[in-house]
Amino acid sequence: MKTRDRILVTSLELFNLCGEPNVTTIDIANEMDISPGNLYYHFRNKDEIISELFQAFEENMLDVLQSPTDPGLDMMDYWMYVHMIFERMWDYRFLYRDPVTILERNEKLQRKFNRILDKKQDAALSIIQVMEGQSLISISREEAERLSTNIALTATYWLNFQHIRHMGSNSEPDDLEAGVYQVISHIAPYLPPEGRELLDAVADTYLGASSSGG
Amino acid sequence: MKTRDRILVTSLELFNLCGEPNVTTIDIANEMDISPGNLYYHFRNKDEIISELFQAFEENMLDVLQSPTDPGLDMMDYWMYVHMIFERMWDYRFLYRDPVTILERNEKLQRKFNRILDKKQDAALSIIQVMEGQSLISISREEAERLSTNIALTATYWLNFQHIRHMGSNSEPDDLEAGVYQVISHIAPYLPPEGRELLDAVADTYLGASSSGG
Repeated sequence: MKTRDRILVTSLELFNLCGEPNVTTIDIANEMDISPGNLYYHFRNKDEIISELFQAFEENMLDVLQSPTDPGLDMMDYWMYVHMIFERMWDYRFLYRDPVTILERNEKLQRKFNRILDKKQDAALSIIQVMEGQSLISISREEAERLSTNIALTATYWLNFQHIRHMGSNSEPDDLEAGVYQVISHIAPYLPPEGRELLDAVADTYLGASSSGG
Repeated sequence: MKTRDRILVTSLELFNLCGEPNVTTIDIANEMDISPGNLYYHFRNKDEIISELFQAFEENMLDVLQSPTDPGLDMMDYWMYVHMIFERMWDYRFLYRDPVTILERNEKLQRKFNRILDKKQDAALSIIQVMEGQSLISISREEAERLSTNIALTATYWLNFQHIRHMGSNSEPDDLEAGVYQVISHIAPYLPPEGRELLDAVADTYLGASSSGG
């Protein structure tokens, strides 16, 4: 692997492990056993590294956030879709741990992060509308708007919430399944009884099949 | 006002305005037009100031988070209850802007913050159970657990979410009403049609009556 790419991989690992505010470019160079000068040859400062990592994250996210509008999709498909989004957030979880601290240093990242939030809300709204079209759920336009906001908010802050809930326990919480379940549970009350039963069955399969993601 | 109290008031203002990581004890002393030595006479460092502010915040929150279990409460009462919680979080909003950054420096605050989260979830669960007892909603025990987690999560991260959503706009979002509505909307789908109509009426009254909180 080229030094430039190794810097990115090592930075991502350290940011995810220690939190971005706690990692300096010197830490990254030390971890790689290269000189700081060598690192600065590739990246002038930490923000340049973050920008490049964010670029990769954004491409990943915008790709997966293409709303699934295929009317043939079933509950398991939606579940796996949310899971894919969680996997991508997990890979770059440092962004979700200290978002304000990271974003307020860089206006470009603010716009990019908000674009991802827009896409999350759009994707949620689009899925709700498809489910409405399939007569799977019954919901008003206003309810759908608030529901999609709540879904995007839970998806965005679940990892932060889990991180705080497990502080002091020395175990990194990585049960993405619980987060996926939490997000999907927003839809549950809009389902008819048979839909809720189907959701419970999917949840059992899914939570039973996979131990802990990450 | 005593110097010690002025330091606390000024710190809270600056933390809320600029974000805690961006404010030093020197900034606080400068803002008050006192010497750093005078500040250090009262507080050895910034973490001591934060601890004392957190103490006041915790007392406020635990007080209001005493679950309202009076079975005579109606929808408007619940709405005002959530509003009170939002007002207290707003007063100490710096804690909700960079929670991980602040909490990871101090294990005691981690425990306190998690105790508040516990209380939030307990209060939500307790209200859901009272509403069930009043036959206002129909919900299973498992659904109630997930619902109370989603409610606590939305209440905890709404200010952070709004802050990120408005980054770059130069306007501090202070529409607590939107946050209250967002939290209450979690309950909506569990209500029967007449309950949803009542909620819409309360929302109209409430959102119309107050312009913007804070």
